[in-house]
Amino acid sequence: MASSRKEALDAARGSIPADIVCRCAGIYNPFTCSWDTGSLAIKDGIVLGIGEYSGVQEYDFEDQFIVPGLINAHVHIESSLLTPREYSRLAALHGTTTAIADPHEIANVAGTRGIEFMLAEREGAAIDIRYLLPSCVPATPLDKGGAVLEARDLAPFIAREGILGLGEMMNVPGVLAGDPGITAKLNLSPIRDGHAPALTGRDLNAYCLAGLQSDHECTTLHEAAGKLRAGMYIFIREGSTERNIGSLVPLVTPATVSRCCFATDDSHADLLAAEGDIDRCIRRAIGCGLPPELALRMATLSPAERFGLSDRGALVPGRRADFCVIDDPQKFTVLSVFRAGTKVSAGQRVTSPSPPESFGCTTPSPGSLRIDGCGRARVIALVPLQIRTESAYYDVDGSHLPDLDRDILKAVVVNRYRRAPCGIGLVHGFGFRCGAIASSVSHDAHNIIAVGTSDAEILRAIDEVIRVKGAMVAVAGTTRTLLPLDCAGLMSTLPAEQVAARMTELARTTGLMEGIADPFMYLSFLALTVIPELRVTDRGVFDAVAFRDVPLFVE
Amino acid sequence: MASSRKEALDAARGSIPADIVCRCAGIYNPFTCSWDTGSLAIKDGIVLGIGEYSGVQEYDFEDQFIVPGLINAHVHIESSLLTPREYSRLAALHGTTTAIADPHEIANVAGTRGIEFMLAEREGAAIDIRYLLPSCVPATPLDKGGAVLEARDLAPFIAREGILGLGEMMNVPGVLAGDPGITAKLNLSPIRDGHAPALTGRDLNAYCLAGLQSDHECTTLHEAAGKLRAGMYIFIREGSTERNIGSLVPLVTPATVSRCCFATDDSHADLLAAEGDIDRCIRRAIGCGLPPELALRMATLSPAERFGLSDRGALVPGRRADFCVIDDPQKFTVLSVFRAGTKVSAGQRVTSPSPPESFGCTTPSPGSLRIDGCGRARVIALVPLQIRTESAYYDVDGSHLPDLDRDILKAVVVNRYRRAPCGIGLVHGFGFRCGAIASSVSHDAHNIIAVGTSDAEILRAIDEVIRVKGAMVAVAGTTRTLLPLDCAGLMSTLPAEQVAARMTELARTTGLMEGIADPFMYLSFLALTVIPELRVTDRGVFDAVAFRDVPLFVE
Repeated sequence: MASSRKEALDAARGSIPADIVCRCAGIYNPFTCSWDTGSLAIKDGIVLGIGEYSGVQEYDFEDQFIVPGLINAHVHIESSLLTPREYSRLAALHGTTTAIADPHEIANVAGTRGIEFMLAEREGAAIDIRYLLPSCVPATPLDKGGAVLEARDLAPFIAREGILGLGEMMNVPGVLAGDPGITAKLNLSPIRDGHAPALTGRDLNAYCLAGLQSDHECTTLHEAAGKLRAGMYIFIREGSTERNIGSLVPLVTPATVSRCCFATDDSHADLLAAEGDIDRCIRRAIGCGLPPELALRMATLSPAERFGLSDRGALVPGRRADFCVIDDPQKFTVLSVFRAGTKVSAGQRVTSPSPPESFGCTTPSPGSLRIDGCGRARVIALVPLQIRTESAYYDVDGSHLPDLDRDILKAVVVNRYRRAPCGIGLVHGFGFRCGAIASSVSHDAHNIIAVGTSDAEILRAIDEVIRVKGAMVAVAGTTRTLLPLDCAGLMSTLPAEQVAARMTELARTTGLMEGIADPFMYLSFLALTVIPELRVTDRGVFDAVAFRDVPLFVE
Repeated sequence: MASSRKEALDAARGSIPADIVCRCAGIYNPFTCSWDTGSLAIKDGIVLGIGEYSGVQEYDFEDQFIVPGLINAHVHIESSLLTPREYSRLAALHGTTTAIADPHEIANVAGTRGIEFMLAEREGAAIDIRYLLPSCVPATPLDKGGAVLEARDLAPFIAREGILGLGEMMNVPGVLAGDPGITAKLNLSPIRDGHAPALTGRDLNAYCLAGLQSDHECTTLHEAAGKLRAGMYIFIREGSTERNIGSLVPLVTPATVSRCCFATDDSHADLLAAEGDIDRCIRRAIGCGLPPELALRMATLSPAERFGLSDRGALVPGRRADFCVIDDPQKFTVLSVFRAGTKVSAGQRVTSPSPPESFGCTTPSPGSLRIDGCGRARVIALVPLQIRTESAYYDVDGSHLPDLDRDILKAVVVNRYRRAPCGIGLVHGFGFRCGAIASSVSHDAHNIIAVGTSDAEILRAIDEVIRVKGAMVAVAGTTRTLLPLDCAGLMSTLPAEQVAARMTELARTTGLMEGIADPFMYLSFLALTVIPELRVTDRGVFDAVAFRDVPLFVE
């Protein structure tokens, strides 16, 4: 160790050769938000510096540019539908070398076993995955998911390698009320991510006072500016459904950029495979007029500083030699990626360990889907392109449902963890003319949820999900398409390319149903009790404004 | 504790009153480098936020502005000639609420006892003093000061309250060579300040690779830009003798300001009393064209971030209510200062505990100052306004010294720690026509050093220093002026105003000698062996280029 230190110093001084020297047109420097010239020298995976160097191995990147490895400030890997290792393989090819992930979904399904699985996946991953501990499992006290995680359950993880702090604290009312259980969680770590959509003014002050330091839920410039001024790091999010770069890019200036980062939050495998990860965010931001030099600061040093990762985020002496070679700062195409000085190759797929088992239910009987009675019913109305729903009211006859003419379909939630009666609700907005879809991805409890045009197809779709222990299934006439999510019912152990292909197939099958585009996205949020207005859970209809279970029929 | 947390949240939400509410024309926000409007609310010394608030006590600062408490990124308190508590009283009145200090001088005199004294002085200080552990005691292996501090001596301090990390590592050759003793010191803490004047290129890379993270020795823009690009924090220094703001201000832009801080390094009580501390630096930087909004970032959040002090540096919810009221951002006159929500008053002088005893010598005999022989002698030539000296050569007769016609005076160094022969050198440049000066401030060993026009006056000045156990003394004819430095021979336990007055008196007395201005400054560096070219120590003449003792007469 002492001799390797001496050798590193000698190599930095140029008295012995470096391991690797890269020549290029420019090297991005986040300390100045500009480009340095010279050769990048590396030894033992660590940057020696930029200057006149010779190396054992020399790369000439001619007219190309070198930038520090990209850092994703906030991602739920489960939402990619890929295992962490497989996610990391794709992310690495797109230039991401570090991801700060919150295993919120698998923790809701499998508790600490889920977190252990995600930690185990760090080994052999193509990027450095660091986790924040999920702070809100379950999302609400009413939600019966697979686990309840209190501060005492999380505490043993805090000092574990790979754990950075506490993940997004979504229970804003609990924080503001000084709830003791939440306070205990906030006291676990000095690093605490926030989640406070639309919070402003004095309540925002109180939320910050409680110790929350970042937010990735801003949708307007006004909201983001207020949170930035209150001392929060702003993670500008561009996920599969939530896309905020267009609105928030004006927030980023040379004076604010050290407090701004990029996050992909919930991004599916198809988006990752087709368009990339943080490189996609950079291109999008540049497209919105942000200079590449500021977009790069957001993707490198700013998240490194936010999470105290002083060993990365810049290609300066002593930091990790994580870097990308790109074609051109404006176009920002990632050509090759080096992690700790070693080139990342495309094909290093690593098999995952056994995922946690989480299914303890059986397919409901046909009779259990029956709706008795008739009258004025509460119907969940989808809002296109949003995860929010509205409360609608229709006069219905239970024996004549689903009602395709008025687009009133049954939504069925089966508790996946244990045998229990299923919950039935009605939903307007899917617009299916035939078939059914079911999924074991259903925020945040991740029960099995299905919507369809007939009880038989709904049951068939649910049965498929249970048979393969987790899946997204579309059934339309004789067609049945299935994406297996055999890892906790959330992620697939298939390679990313196959997952993306299955997603395309699923879209083709749901296309046959002639309904709303991307129906699995709406399906996955239909049971999310923390977002207004009306939801369906394994207990039945849920009023997410009054925050209580309600009967299907209005009294 | 839980109830106070609840109350703080309630106060932040506005449901109960704050302790203090300040209205003003604008509140500086370092996250945006701009001014917020609204009222600043405080409870239990902590900022609740900015907004519409009412408080038990309300201040109306009308057309005035509020800025976060200023942070001094690097200061040697000993150089103020004041004890830490007295220094803090003056600094606080000028808006400094946190100082990062390196007790390098007292550690050279009194070792760990000196550090303990400085730590004890934190209690009752008007500002929050945080220390970095002196990394270079003694400055060189040859220097016989009052202590030798190895990593094992420093290690017990690392976890102590008030200690932030390792102070400026001046032994650049030792760092570059991978010296095991230095490596052990660097391994003590993740926070390590650097000190690398004029270091550039690959050697700078190696110095950074070794783990040094900051520098306050830059004198040119080119040097500072190189260090900034290599990942260093740049502390722009404006001390009593070293003034770099004028040269370095162009380094500071919105993109770089998060990596730039202000430091006063060595600043005497008179400068502090007359012109201020970090507020002086801000005014100077504004005078050099820096926008106040960038100067303020350098003085608040940037040093807080550099030292991991996440509880200060900005007036946002949850941080300390350390703040200053100023008249106007451009003029930047500090009108009042609050520390943790409490107004700092002018008169809170706190008596210091007993300072460490450090004198073990006696006044040399007249005979010991005799120079025998004649021939070509090495003479230290002062360089006006610099601490560097040059080697000069004169033909001299030992029995005819000093030689006022050619301005060749005797410089005498008495080991203050133990009885030992004194060292004699010759110096050109003081230009005294009469009298002598002596001081127990003599970097870095802090022996007693004297220069004068007659042996008798030199001995009388030295005798005074020893009699009062530390002082700066000027003797001219019948006039004798003395500033007692009764605290380790470095600091005075007098009030700051009296110290400043004595310094003025000393200047008046040395004025009678008709020599160079500010002779004590040159005197205090005359024994500093780490700066070229020629020096005098308690062993005699020292060649600071060849780095060895040399005889007075050239062989």
